Amino acid sequence: MESFGRNEIINLFASIALLLAAARVLGEAFRRFRLPAVVGELLAGVLLGPTVFGRIFPGAFAALFADGSPSTIALDGFVLLGVTFLLLIAGLEVDLSSVGKLGRHVAFISVMTIALPFGIGVATAALFPTLFGMYRSDPVFSLFLGVALSITALPIIAKILMDINLLQSEIGVIILAAALVNDIAGWIVFSIIIQLMKTGSVGVAEVVRMIVLTALVTGFVLTAFRWLVNKIIPWVQANTEVPGGVLAFIVITGLLVSTLTEAIGIHAIFGAFLAGIAFGDSPHLKQHTREVIHQFINNIFAPLFFVSIGMKVDFAQHFNPLLTAVLIVIAFATKVAGAMLGGKWAGLRLRQATAIGWGMSARGAMEIILGLVAMQHGLISRDIFVSITIMAVVTSLLSAPLMKAFMRTTGARGILDLSDRRLFIGALKATNAREAIGELAALAGERLGIDPNLIAETALERERIMSTGIGDGVAVPHARLTQIRAPRVAIGMSPNGIDFNAPDGKPARIVFLILTPENDQEAQIDVLSEIARLLGRAWTRDPVLRAHRYSEFVTAIKMARFGAKLSEG
Amino acid sequence: MESFGRNEIINLFASIALLLAAARVLGEAFRRFRLPAVVGELLAGVLLGPTVFGRIFPGAFAALFADGSPSTIALDGFVLLGVTFLLLIAGLEVDLSSVGKLGRHVAFISVMTIALPFGIGVATAALFPTLFGMYRSDPVFSLFLGVALSITALPIIAKILMDINLLQSEIGVIILAAALVNDIAGWIVFSIIIQLMKTGSVGVAEVVRMIVLTALVTGFVLTAFRWLVNKIIPWVQANTEVPGGVLAFIVITGLLVSTLTEAIGIHAIFGAFLAGIAFGDSPHLKQHTREVIHQFINNIFAPLFFVSIGMKVDFAQHFNPLLTAVLIVIAFATKVAGAMLGGKWAGLRLRQATAIGWGMSARGAMEIILGLVAMQHGLISRDIFVSITIMAVVTSLLSAPLMKAFMRTTGARGILDLSDRRLFIGALKATNAREAIGELAALAGERLGIDPNLIAETALERERIMSTGIGDGVAVPHARLTQIRAPRVAIGMSPNGIDFNAPDGKPARIVFLILTPENDQEAQIDVLSEIARLLGRAWTRDPVLRAHRYSEFVTAIKMARFGAKLSEG
Repeated sequence: MESFGRNEIINLFASIALLLAAARVLGEAFRRFRLPAVVGELLAGVLLGPTVFGRIFPGAFAALFADGSPSTIALDGFVLLGVTFLLLIAGLEVDLSSVGKLGRHVAFISVMTIALPFGIGVATAALFPTLFGMYRSDPVFSLFLGVALSITALPIIAKILMDINLLQSEIGVIILAAALVNDIAGWIVFSIIIQLMKTGSVGVAEVVRMIVLTALVTGFVLTAFRWLVNKIIPWVQANTEVPGGVLAFIVITGLLVSTLTEAIGIHAIFGAFLAGIAFGDSPHLKQHTREVIHQFINNIFAPLFFVSIGMKVDFAQHFNPLLTAVLIVIAFATKVAGAMLGGKWAGLRLRQATAIGWGMSARGAMEIILGLVAMQHGLISRDIFVSITIMAVVTSLLSAPLMKAFMRTTGARGILDLSDRRLFIGALKATNAREAIGELAALAGERLGIDPNLIAETALERERIMSTGIGDGVAVPHARLTQIRAPRVAIGMSPNGIDFNAPDGKPARIVFLILTPENDQEAQIDVLSEIARLLGRAWTRDPVLRAHRYSEFVTAIKMARFGAKLSEG
Repeated sequence: MESFGRNEIINLFASIALLLAAARVLGEAFRRFRLPAVVGELLAGVLLGPTVFGRIFPGAFAALFADGSPSTIALDGFVLLGVTFLLLIAGLEVDLSSVGKLGRHVAFISVMTIALPFGIGVATAALFPTLFGMYRSDPVFSLFLGVALSITALPIIAKILMDINLLQSEIGVIILAAALVNDIAGWIVFSIIIQLMKTGSVGVAEVVRMIVLTALVTGFVLTAFRWLVNKIIPWVQANTEVPGGVLAFIVITGLLVSTLTEAIGIHAIFGAFLAGIAFGDSPHLKQHTREVIHQFINNIFAPLFFVSIGMKVDFAQHFNPLLTAVLIVIAFATKVAGAMLGGKWAGLRLRQATAIGWGMSARGAMEIILGLVAMQHGLISRDIFVSITIMAVVTSLLSAPLMKAFMRTTGARGILDLSDRRLFIGALKATNAREAIGELAALAGERLGIDPNLIAETALERERIMSTGIGDGVAVPHARLTQIRAPRVAIGMSPNGIDFNAPDGKPARIVFLILTPENDQEAQIDVLSEIARLLGRAWTRDPVLRAHRYSEFVTAIKMARFGAKLSEG
């Protein structure tokens, strides 16, 4: 506190309040129009930075954000912690196990959506140095541009998929896993580039040393550290305040890993990202704790970081329209072409593969962070930083609508969207409700990677409160689970019928086991209302009850939809 | 981020991790022994500061905490924000309405527990300047010492009262309200002193100007600002993420009020305290949001602040035993005498009034913050700061046992206080109630040195009158024993369940064997009411029933407490 005199305290507190207020207000305004809040936060920085505020009131700007004054340094410190914590929660989101699940699809798409942007990026930088304001090509910069074009913004993709209810679908898992591979690979290569740049030399020995070091640290954090953290978290939870004790533990160990990576020459934020993956993987970490961390980082630290980005440079002075346009075109074209090629080899339909490509085009905050670090290390000019930032914003804004257009999805939670062939049993062996729920839970558990007993127990507990036979041969057992993010429905047919204690006494010939996320209150209502709408009339219901193959079931449901529309006029 | 090179990032992250880890570990260790965590955090600072670490490893200490380096400045910035946020949540705790409730009692005790310490403090400083290392008395310092002796640590008092179950009692409200008046009056006078000191002059016009300014700001924040905040909070909650949006709103407006108070010459942290009172008063602010703020500040920001205090000075070099002893004696004597006098006029019993006096002797963190600000303004020497800090620690440590001794109360009765690892059985072998009671009685008998058969017989006799299965898988057998002085609880889990003849027919999956002293009628009720409160809802009960290790049980009970608090809010 000694470093801060009265004016410094006023400057520090006023500037944090001002930046945070502007970021939050514009962020919320953008969210209102269903645009990413982060774009509003960046814009707040452009308005408060040298581009607008600094140009109109140069005196006030210089006084508030004086270079080298304690308040500016402390503010910089917050921003640094902000981006570190942001990468930490980005890591928390990562589900390592998803990478292996869909091997071939993921591998082809990952490789192609990295290789094509990377190759074209490197080639562009090498062949057209003047475009980037350089007299001759620079191999380190070429590598950087390749990496910058090949990364994908994991959180934005996850958000898009959640919005259009595809997060748990097969295609959703493919996209997420591919994006994750892109992200990790991109960061590792970028760390190596930064290190190369610092040492100045680009000798083979140095490259090998960096690759080995990075691989060692990555391996250590994702294995030994992850194992250790998972052992310690239950102890911390039992012996300290919940969730405060775990919060402190995560902050402390996250900063230690960041220190370690910075010390060996990789940027600290890569360490935070790795540590986040390790924490997020622990099943002991309570959902409530994750939520509290997210709320704090996303509402205080992250906005402060994003608003500060807009303040780094004069966006008007350093705006290069040609370079920006070229980068945007390459950014989209290479990802879409890569996904089309990879998807083709993986046997996906062209339309699906194209949609994946548009989705993976979003570069998001990751890209901007990459650009910022590169600019601070003197690797790229302000012009290039501005172009990269705008490219990240444009790709993030357009990827969702473009992907949706190609997916032709409504975002609705129809039964057919929430179920699939592998969640369907044509003839249940069960003779009572308990067995039926057990059979469907076993199927759903295997399909979704959740303990079937947990699903069955949760559904049965619900069943004990009130039985879910709704009459007319339909039963709708229900389980709310923390383990899933989007609703799913497992369907079982019973030609002989199963007693579900329905009010009309009729045995159930179709059983919908509805699984909904813990925090999604409406999912169950949505599903139930569709069931009621489609199966409420005998003439649409009977064909559904008679189905014993999935294709028959789908046809019957589609017919029922058509019929329901007709009746509704 | 530009201010931070690689070494600076490493220094900043490593020092935050180091300070926070040391503070948390020692804080938790102290909590284990039922001592205030803040004392452990201060001790961590003494160990890491110039007193120990700096003395043994002067080189490493100087490198890590180099004066004027960006990482030291940024760390200072965090500490400054830490103490500001700490005062903000101290303000959140304040319940303005309680002040008026018990008019006469509160007024007499408040006035006397301020007037006596203030008067004696001023007199001591004026009459014995050499004790404080001064050649002649200084009126500003005399005023400061009066204020420093007259404040009372509101959070510590609240914690003590909570521990001994008196928070909601009449005497509890008297103590809290009196402490609150002390706090606010103390801060206002202190703000005026600081301002006087800065301006140098002690002219009457200046004093009047300061009093008027302070009164105006205090009045504005506690009326217009409070009204405005209460209007805006529901809007923020409805239109942004909960609780993240409100968190950001509180941080932004809290910093703005702090900036305002700093700008008019009162210290920024007083503004944070006032803003906290205004926020805390809003009935719209959700209990969950308050809880999240507390968790973050108390586990991250506050420990960083307290550990930094220990690092401010060399506690060994500046330790003045005589001065410290004198301050401690005056601190206790004046508060107790003030409470006795005020209590007498208010018509309280002498023993009660004395107990109030011991309770109000705790000076806590507030005192240390006051001393720190005074030292930074050059008003007091390091010797005096060290003495004041030690006085604050000693009064905080002793006030609870002294008050309890005079209240003749038995102390806390939470399940976790009455049980421990050695009174827990993760999986009972018993298959019926008799065997279960026998198993738990054997454990308790061994642990407490009582004949197990006597415990079992007494509990079974009670069981024969009416069975203690209370439903939902919980059983609460009970034995009143002359052999014990304080209640104890032995806990056994039964995965398969044991029939305790519960009204709902469900077998007991958790058995609490409650042992209470013969003459303590209320002990059983206290324990039962906590069990009902924590296990009354399925979502807090189920995790407890699933525990099969003591650590899991403790975590589940803590989560249930947290959950119960949320539901009540």
